[in-house]
Amino acid sequence: MKTYSYLTMTFIVLATVITGCKDQGENSNGALTSNAAERVYVEPGKFDEFYAFLSGGFSGQLAVYGIPSGRLLKVVPVFSQDPEKAYGYNEETKPMLNTTHGFIPWDDTHHPDMSQTKGVLDGRWVFMNGNNTPRIARVDLTTFETAEIIEIPNSAGNHSSSFVTENTEYVIAGTRFAVPIPQKDMPIKDYKGNFKASLSFLSVDQESGEMDLSFQIRLPGFAYDLVHPGRDKSHGWVFITTYNTEEAHTLLEVNASQNDKDFIAAVNWKKAEEYIKQGKFKTEKAEYAHNIYDEDTHMATSTIKNEVRVLDASELPGLVYFLPTPKSPHGCDVDPTGEYIVGNGKLSADLTVHSFTKMLDAIENKKFDGEAYNIPILNFEDVLGGTVKQPGLGPLHTEFDGKGNAYTTFFISSEVVKWKLGTWEILDRKPTYYSPGHLSIPGGNSRKPWGKYLLAMNKITKDRYLPTGPEVSQSAQLYDITGEKMELLSDFPTIGEPHYASMVPAELIQSKSKKIYRLDENKHPYATTSDANVKVEREGNEVHVYMTMIRSHLNPDNIEGVKVGDKVYFHLTNLEQDYDVPHGFAVIGAENSELLVMPGETETTVWYPKKVGVWPFYCTDFCSALHQEMSGYIRVSPADSNTELTWSLGD
Amino acid sequence: MKTYSYLTMTFIVLATVITGCKDQGENSNGALTSNAAERVYVEPGKFDEFYAFLSGGFSGQLAVYGIPSGRLLKVVPVFSQDPEKAYGYNEETKPMLNTTHGFIPWDDTHHPDMSQTKGVLDGRWVFMNGNNTPRIARVDLTTFETAEIIEIPNSAGNHSSSFVTENTEYVIAGTRFAVPIPQKDMPIKDYKGNFKASLSFLSVDQESGEMDLSFQIRLPGFAYDLVHPGRDKSHGWVFITTYNTEEAHTLLEVNASQNDKDFIAAVNWKKAEEYIKQGKFKTEKAEYAHNIYDEDTHMATSTIKNEVRVLDASELPGLVYFLPTPKSPHGCDVDPTGEYIVGNGKLSADLTVHSFTKMLDAIENKKFDGEAYNIPILNFEDVLGGTVKQPGLGPLHTEFDGKGNAYTTFFISSEVVKWKLGTWEILDRKPTYYSPGHLSIPGGNSRKPWGKYLLAMNKITKDRYLPTGPEVSQSAQLYDITGEKMELLSDFPTIGEPHYASMVPAELIQSKSKKIYRLDENKHPYATTSDANVKVEREGNEVHVYMTMIRSHLNPDNIEGVKVGDKVYFHLTNLEQDYDVPHGFAVIGAENSELLVMPGETETTVWYPKKVGVWPFYCTDFCSALHQEMSGYIRVSPADSNTELTWSLGD
Repeated sequence: MKTYSYLTMTFIVLATVITGCKDQGENSNGALTSNAAERVYVEPGKFDEFYAFLSGGFSGQLAVYGIPSGRLLKVVPVFSQDPEKAYGYNEETKPMLNTTHGFIPWDDTHHPDMSQTKGVLDGRWVFMNGNNTPRIARVDLTTFETAEIIEIPNSAGNHSSSFVTENTEYVIAGTRFAVPIPQKDMPIKDYKGNFKASLSFLSVDQESGEMDLSFQIRLPGFAYDLVHPGRDKSHGWVFITTYNTEEAHTLLEVNASQNDKDFIAAVNWKKAEEYIKQGKFKTEKAEYAHNIYDEDTHMATSTIKNEVRVLDASELPGLVYFLPTPKSPHGCDVDPTGEYIVGNGKLSADLTVHSFTKMLDAIENKKFDGEAYNIPILNFEDVLGGTVKQPGLGPLHTEFDGKGNAYTTFFISSEVVKWKLGTWEILDRKPTYYSPGHLSIPGGNSRKPWGKYLLAMNKITKDRYLPTGPEVSQSAQLYDITGEKMELLSDFPTIGEPHYASMVPAELIQSKSKKIYRLDENKHPYATTSDANVKVEREGNEVHVYMTMIRSHLNPDNIEGVKVGDKVYFHLTNLEQDYDVPHGFAVIGAENSELLVMPGETETTVWYPKKVGVWPFYCTDFCSALHQEMSGYIRVSPADSNTELTWSLGD
Repeated sequence: MKTYSYLTMTFIVLATVITGCKDQGENSNGALTSNAAERVYVEPGKFDEFYAFLSGGFSGQLAVYGIPSGRLLKVVPVFSQDPEKAYGYNEETKPMLNTTHGFIPWDDTHHPDMSQTKGVLDGRWVFMNGNNTPRIARVDLTTFETAEIIEIPNSAGNHSSSFVTENTEYVIAGTRFAVPIPQKDMPIKDYKGNFKASLSFLSVDQESGEMDLSFQIRLPGFAYDLVHPGRDKSHGWVFITTYNTEEAHTLLEVNASQNDKDFIAAVNWKKAEEYIKQGKFKTEKAEYAHNIYDEDTHMATSTIKNEVRVLDASELPGLVYFLPTPKSPHGCDVDPTGEYIVGNGKLSADLTVHSFTKMLDAIENKKFDGEAYNIPILNFEDVLGGTVKQPGLGPLHTEFDGKGNAYTTFFISSEVVKWKLGTWEILDRKPTYYSPGHLSIPGGNSRKPWGKYLLAMNKITKDRYLPTGPEVSQSAQLYDITGEKMELLSDFPTIGEPHYASMVPAELIQSKSKKIYRLDENKHPYATTSDANVKVEREGNEVHVYMTMIRSHLNPDNIEGVKVGDKVYFHLTNLEQDYDVPHGFAVIGAENSELLVMPGETETTVWYPKKVGVWPFYCTDFCSALHQEMSGYIRVSPADSNTELTWSLGD
C-alpha cells in the first residue's frame, strides 16, 4: 500500500501549502475592490439582476439564488425527499422518486443546464442530472417545480450530464462509471474490454418540455467526465472528456493516472440521427422509469419503459473520434463560436485547446494516430488549437464572456485565470477561497454570454465564515468581470455542494412566473374546490377526507368515526386565490411529513391512526392573525368501535 | 356558515389593504438608510458579528445565519429527515426521530432558545421545540449537531416551548391544544372541562446538557400560546399567554375569540419545586421517547420512558394565577428587569403590560376577581403596569434592548413599533414587508440584550424578491436599533418559516466550535481507524463492510461475494484529521441517502442489493484533485451463488 500514496500526498501537500495560505487571502480579498458593498447590495424591495440556478450536489436539490446579492430565493426539491414541501412524502410526488431500483430518497445533482433557443438560454426549463442513480430531471421555470424525471438505463454514475444542445433538441447524459451492459454477475477484474459506457440522447418536446430517451451510443469502458455540446459552427457535435482510458478497476488515483493523454471524444450526433433513420441501431431490452408530474392534476405518474435504441460507436464509422488530451481532463468547454474545445487536464501543467476546424480537416484527411476499440484517434498536433502555458495547478472548468476571453478555475492553486482565445495569453488571475470546482458566467456555456459576473464555486471553505462545527458550508464567490481585471465582490455560503450553475438575466423568467394555481383549473381527482363539497367517505378501512383550507379555517374541523387500523387520506385543497397565501397541514403524531399547499392546489397525505384518542390537526404555515385558531380534532376510536363517521365545521 | 366569516373577512381585507400597499414600501425602503450597503456587507474573509439561530418552522430544522450579512451558514437537521447529511437515514441517527407514535420524518419547529448563565445567553446549547409531535431538541454548539430529543407526554401541539430559565435550570414546554389526558376515545363535543393541558419542566444537566422531564403542571384545557420565564426579580416564575379560554372545539376563529379577555398564566415554579419536594405530585403513567446522540460513539439511542410526576394547578394553592389580558394574547414577553410582562393581545387595540410587583402585591392581598377551575384570577386593574395605546394592528411579539425600550411586531399593520417601558409612549415605527411574526434582538429576551440589531421575521414576501413560482420564501428584515430611530438595513429570504431566532455575539461560540472529530477518540463500535483494519465480514445474510475514506481512495474499493437478498452494512470511517475535509459515500441504486462523514467520524448506511451486477460506489463530496477517482465496485451475485467474499484495494 506504500506505492500508491505519493500522488495523493503530493496533492494534499500542494493543496495545504497553497490553500492554507491565509496571508494571500487577507492581502487580496474584497478590501481591494472599491464599492464592493454597493455593487452586491440589493436595496430592500428591489430585485436582483440575475437568477442563478445552482445544483445542490449531494443535497440532491436545485438552489435558486439572486445575483448579485447572493440571496437564496428557493430550494427546489428534485431528487431528494423534502419534508418541508412534502416532496417524496405526499401521494402526489412519491412517484417522482420511483426508479427500477425502487423508491430512492436521494441523489447527487451536478449540472443544471437551461433550455436554449438558437444557442441562447431561454428561461423555459432547467435540466439537471442525478449522478448517483442515473436520472435527468426537468424543472419548470413558470412554477419552479420538478416536472419530470427520467431514469437512464445502461448507465452508472450519470456525471457527464445534463447538457443541452442549441435548440434544446437533446439533453445529453453520459456515464461516469463503466459497467457490464446489460448488468451481469462478472468478476470485477474482467473490467477491461468487457465493461462499457453509454452516451444518452434525450429528445425534448418543444411545447411540453417532455423528454424521451431517443437513443444511446455505446462507448468503450472509459470514465466519461463532462460533456459540452458544440455551439454555432460545431452545432451537431458533442464533446466529452474521458479519464481512466487505462480501464483500471481499482486504486484509480494511481491506476487511472498512468496515461500521458486521455481523450476528448467528439461525437457527431447529426450523424447519429442519420444512422437512426437508416435503422442502424439495435433495440436492446433495458428497463427505466419515466416519471411525469401532470400540470393539470398536480399528480405524478411513474411508468416503466423497457427498451432503448443503441448505436455502437465501435461499429459505425464517422460517429465518434478521439482527440488526445493531457492528462485526465475533467472539464470540457466549447467557446461561443464553437471553434475552440478546451480540455482541462486536471493533472496537466498546460491547458489544451482543440480547434474544431482542424478537427474536421483531420477527419477529412484521415490524420489518425491509431484507434481505440475501432474508434479513430486523431493526431494530437493536427487538432491542437493552442496551449495556455502553465496557467496554474489543477485546471477544472472554463467559461466564456463572449468577448474572446476565457476564464478557468484551478482547484489546486485556488484561483481563477482569465486568458485570451487565439493568443492564449494570460490576462489576469485572482485567488479564490478555496479550491474552486466549476465557475459560471451568465450564458457562459452558450452562444450568448451576458458576461458581467463570474461565480466561482469553491470546495473548501474553512476560515471564510463563522465556524459551525466540523461541517461547514461550501462557498461561492462573485467576481465582476466587466473590466480588464476581475474584481472579487463577495463570498456567500451555498446549499449542499454546487457543482455548476446556470445564470440568466431575471427578465427571461420573472414575468412568466406563476403566482397561483387557478382553482377553476384544478383537475386533481380528490380536489374540493368549494366548502359545499367537503365530505368524509369510508371505503372499507380507507377513509377519504375531502378538506378545504382558507383563512382561517380547515373544513371539516371536527371528525369522528375513524378507527385504529384505518388508512386515512387527507386530501387538502387550498381555496385561496391570492399570491403568497399557502396553507400547511399536519396531524399530531402522523408518521409522515406536513403538507404545504399552494393557492388553488390539492395535496394528499396518508395517516395510519394507531392510538385511540382525540388528535389535533392544524395549519402549519402562519397565514393570518387567526392562524393559531386554524385547527381541528380527529377522534380515533378502537378498531371494533361503532362510532359513526361524522364531520362538522361550526356545529 | 355565513355567520362566522365576518372576522376572517375583516382580517383579510385589513391585511390586503395594508400589506398590499406597494407605495408605502417604495417610499420608505432601504434607500432612506444611509450606507446600508456597507453596514450589512461583510468583506470576503471577514466574519459576521453575530450568530442568529432561526427555527425552520415547517422545515423542522434550525438555520444558522451570520448577522449583519444575512448569509445562511448552515442548516442543522433537528426534527426532519435530511438526505444530504443522512440524518434520519443512517443507522446512527435514525433513533433520533423515534417517538411513541413511531418514526416521524418531520416536525414543525418554532422557538429556538439558548442556554443561559445568570440570565445571560452563554452559547452552550440551543433548545428548540417540535410543535407537532411534542418534542424538545437540544443542539450542541460545539458541533452544531442535534444532541438530544425528548418527547413530551400529555401534550398535543408543543407550541409554547422551548424557553429557558435564567440558569438553564429548566427548559419549559407548554401544550397548544388541550386533549384528554390520558388520551381516550371521547366525543369532541365533551371538550369543555374534560380536555386538559400540560406545562412541562425539563431539567438540564449543567455538564452534559442532558434533559430530564422533571415534572408537569396540569392546567385547564385552554390553548397555551407562548411562554416567557421570569428574569431577575421575577426569576422563579414563568408567564404563559392563553387563548381559547372559551374552550371551544370547533370554528375557533370565531368561537375562541368571544372573551374580552383571556389570561396570562403566572406559574410559580419555585413553589412547584417545593410541592415536588413535599411529595405532592401524582406519578402518572405516560410513555415518551428520550433520544440521545452519544458524543463518543456518534450513535443515537432511543429509550421509552413511562411515567411522569404531575402537579395539579387546580388542587395546589399558590402554584398558578391568571392575569386577565385582552384579547387572545399571542406573544408573552418579560423585560430584562423582570418587572414588566407584555401580553400581545392579537385582537386588542392596545398593548397590555402587567407589573410583576403589582402582581405579587395583588396575590399577597388576595385581590382576586373570581377563579377558573379553582385557579385564582387576579383583578386586571390591580396587576396592570401600563398600556401602550393603539400602537398598531395585530401585535404579536415584543423584545427589549436593555435601555428601557421595547419593540413590538404588528402582523396586520406590518410594522415594528418602538416604545418606552414605564412611560408607554411610542418612540418610533417602521414598516415591515410584510406581516411580521416574531422579532429578535441579540439577547433581547434575557437579562442582557446586546441590542444593535433587530431582526423581523415576516410571514408574507410577495413582491420583495425575484419570483419563484407560487411558492416564495419567507423573509427576514434587519434593522439597526442603535439610534433613536430604527433604520431598515436589508431584506434576506429565510429557510422554511422562521418563527423565532436566538441571536448572540459570535465570540460566545466561535472559539469553542469543533473543527474535527479526533480519530483516536472514535468509539463507534464499527469504526475502522486504520487501513490495516479494513475488512468485510459475513454473518448469515448480513454483510458488514468496514471501509475507510481518505484522499483519494475508499478502502476496500473492490468487493465480491455479496448476494441478492443480503443486508449490507457499509461502515465508513473518514480517516482525515484536517478541518473541512469531509467525504461522502453512496452506492448506485441504493434505496437510501448518501453518507456525509466528517473527519474522524464513522457512519453506517444499509443497502439491500436486489439486482445482480457490478455496482459502483464513490465519494460524493469533491475532496481533492483526484476525487473523481475515489470510487470502487461491489459485485452482486445471485442468491444461490458460490462467489467467495473478497475485498481489495490495489490488487
